[in-house]
Amino acid sequence: MKKCGDNKMDLEDTLLMMPGPVPVTPRVLRAMSKPMINHRSAEFAGIYTDCRQILADVFQTKNDIFLLSGSGTAGMEAAVGSVAGSGDKVIAIENGKFGQRFKDLAALYADVVPLEFEWGLPVDLEMVKEKLEEGAKAITLVHNETSAGIMNPAVEIGKLAKKHDAIFIMDGVTSLGGDEVKVDEWGVDIAIVGSQKCLAAPPGMSAVSVSEKAFEAINSMKKRPYYNDLKAYKKSGDKPRPETPYTPALPLFYAMQEALHIVKEEGMEVRIKRHRALSEAVRAAAGAMNIEMFPQLNEYSKYSNTVTAMKAPAGVDGEDVKNDMKKRGVIIAGGQEHLKGKIFRIGNMGNVTARDVLSTIQQLEIVLSKQGYIDSVGAGAEAAMRVIDRV
Amino acid sequence: MKKCGDNKMDLEDTLLMMPGPVPVTPRVLRAMSKPMINHRSAEFAGIYTDCRQILADVFQTKNDIFLLSGSGTAGMEAAVGSVAGSGDKVIAIENGKFGQRFKDLAALYADVVPLEFEWGLPVDLEMVKEKLEEGAKAITLVHNETSAGIMNPAVEIGKLAKKHDAIFIMDGVTSLGGDEVKVDEWGVDIAIVGSQKCLAAPPGMSAVSVSEKAFEAINSMKKRPYYNDLKAYKKSGDKPRPETPYTPALPLFYAMQEALHIVKEEGMEVRIKRHRALSEAVRAAAGAMNIEMFPQLNEYSKYSNTVTAMKAPAGVDGEDVKNDMKKRGVIIAGGQEHLKGKIFRIGNMGNVTARDVLSTIQQLEIVLSKQGYIDSVGAGAEAAMRVIDRV
Repeated sequence: MKKCGDNKMDLEDTLLMMPGPVPVTPRVLRAMSKPMINHRSAEFAGIYTDCRQILADVFQTKNDIFLLSGSGTAGMEAAVGSVAGSGDKVIAIENGKFGQRFKDLAALYADVVPLEFEWGLPVDLEMVKEKLEEGAKAITLVHNETSAGIMNPAVEIGKLAKKHDAIFIMDGVTSLGGDEVKVDEWGVDIAIVGSQKCLAAPPGMSAVSVSEKAFEAINSMKKRPYYNDLKAYKKSGDKPRPETPYTPALPLFYAMQEALHIVKEEGMEVRIKRHRALSEAVRAAAGAMNIEMFPQLNEYSKYSNTVTAMKAPAGVDGEDVKNDMKKRGVIIAGGQEHLKGKIFRIGNMGNVTARDVLSTIQQLEIVLSKQGYIDSVGAGAEAAMRVIDRV
Repeated sequence: MKKCGDNKMDLEDTLLMMPGPVPVTPRVLRAMSKPMINHRSAEFAGIYTDCRQILADVFQTKNDIFLLSGSGTAGMEAAVGSVAGSGDKVIAIENGKFGQRFKDLAALYADVVPLEFEWGLPVDLEMVKEKLEEGAKAITLVHNETSAGIMNPAVEIGKLAKKHDAIFIMDGVTSLGGDEVKVDEWGVDIAIVGSQKCLAAPPGMSAVSVSEKAFEAINSMKKRPYYNDLKAYKKSGDKPRPETPYTPALPLFYAMQEALHIVKEEGMEVRIKRHRALSEAVRAAAGAMNIEMFPQLNEYSKYSNTVTAMKAPAGVDGEDVKNDMKKRGVIIAGGQEHLKGKIFRIGNMGNVTARDVLSTIQQLEIVLSKQGYIDSVGAGAEAAMRVIDRV
């Protein structure tokens, strides 16, 4: 029998507070119910062009932007596999699961130069500099490493890459659309965003911006991936009636267009401010409950503004926190791979509101209280409210 | 001003009679409006498992089946790139655009042995036999070549592949779910279906069945594509709570599940009979209007039962037919590449009804009459009605 406070009535009515997929507003869900159209038509070209124009503002770039019918991983493969091949050195910076993925991709397509830090530790810029001085065609960085809740120093690495003439490939999958990313100013040659993160569209798509410098490399490559080939996207995207090389996932395009209009209506400045305030509120709540942040920072690293990774407190299993939260109608994330059980993560990506965050904190307090970690509830929520009240 | 009979009121209210994307029923469109869920949950596993079970009936196979968040092309890349690498011979049979795509994929990943026929000409089995006798790791075939409206001899090629111990990779993108495909009986090691064809789901997904023999090859490969890696799909799909290696396109999974339930409710036998009757009706109408079929057959080849490719009659441009049809609210396809203008194609894939086909024929007659090719209208529709009346 349901107990009072056990508020999971219906799986469809839960609060999704993961670092993606994120809740998709009814307005965006409804957009997907439009009938199918010919994907080689003026109508599709209009949708594609509209998306690309709004994304140019989100990315702060004049570079070409393509929409791929594949997740962020497809975008990452397109980036690495289209610019580097056998014999090309690619420095892959890793301090979390997605950095590791870039490393695996670099190893598959090119000669990987791994630059590994323990997951959650900051990137050492001196070591990046050293590796670049040895020469490399490209360097990969995960801007916002969700697996560890850390924001890596994109500006500094962009400068170093430019100095050493390396193509700068940046996974902005979970930062673009929620936090500040200046593709042109930072010198990001290829930037990737996922649909189901800060843009608050459904999963299954990614968007990739490509600089002139990156295109030069792409055009000189003998082999590239087939489905995720940026040269093919360029060719199709440059047509007078822009299209995609292969049949696009139409409903996801409908959804992306609507989601981008919501982004545009809110305005990127306000949107970034909101994401920052909400993550600050989560961190304040954690502090009030004596819960430690998982990542360790240095002067160039920051806590992520779109996902907060916290250490499971002594005597508490992170997976239990996740599972108990789910029973109470709030879906948060645990740790991945070797971090399973050791951390838990709360996302505040996309169109998440202050109400959602405060509600999540309250449920977290109840869960941790029931698990015997805290004696009384309310301190976390109060701390979060003070932050939100101040903004 | 709109003229009487110029019935294109609204682009969203057109009749989509292309060989994909096909119309998606409101029931399936509504399924996409369900909220997002955690893709590593029991709830997602349930959807995935349900889809795989129904697809096993569609494919008539006991092999493993995976759902890829990428179009049919992604499925084709997964098939070729996961089983064959540098030094492996892959025979690629081509008699249309999609056969050409398999050839390009085989050339990218392995040592391609092209077996090219003019687009629309039948496959010569003697030549297939000769190539196989020279030895090959795999052979690719497009079962239903939509670009040319021809059904290739899968049964015979399956037998030859088995005899010569070659992995038989079959693009069933536009036949599976609408025409008879017996994966196990025919010895198809890897079969691929697209979502937006006979299954009548939205575009952006594919499903791939993989035999034990194919898995042996996959497991011995040093390199495979990353996003479209069948080994990664196998590993994730075999978990007690099945999942996909990377974030799946959730709305497309919701839609696919609903679309597959519609397939199951109709029953594959009835569904195949319907597709065959509707394509026969289109061919009868063409015959009554003295419009020639584009493909040339031999004793092993057939006209496609899911798309009809017709030669543009003397003095008529196929593109004009397509464009005039669109103005009248019916979207058909033209020819691709060098066939542009020379042919036009009418699809009858998915949940297309007799009413849809008859309505399309009527509009085609009006268009051809206005273009001066036929003197009076009605003969085509009458011929089509007679076929449908008989079934």
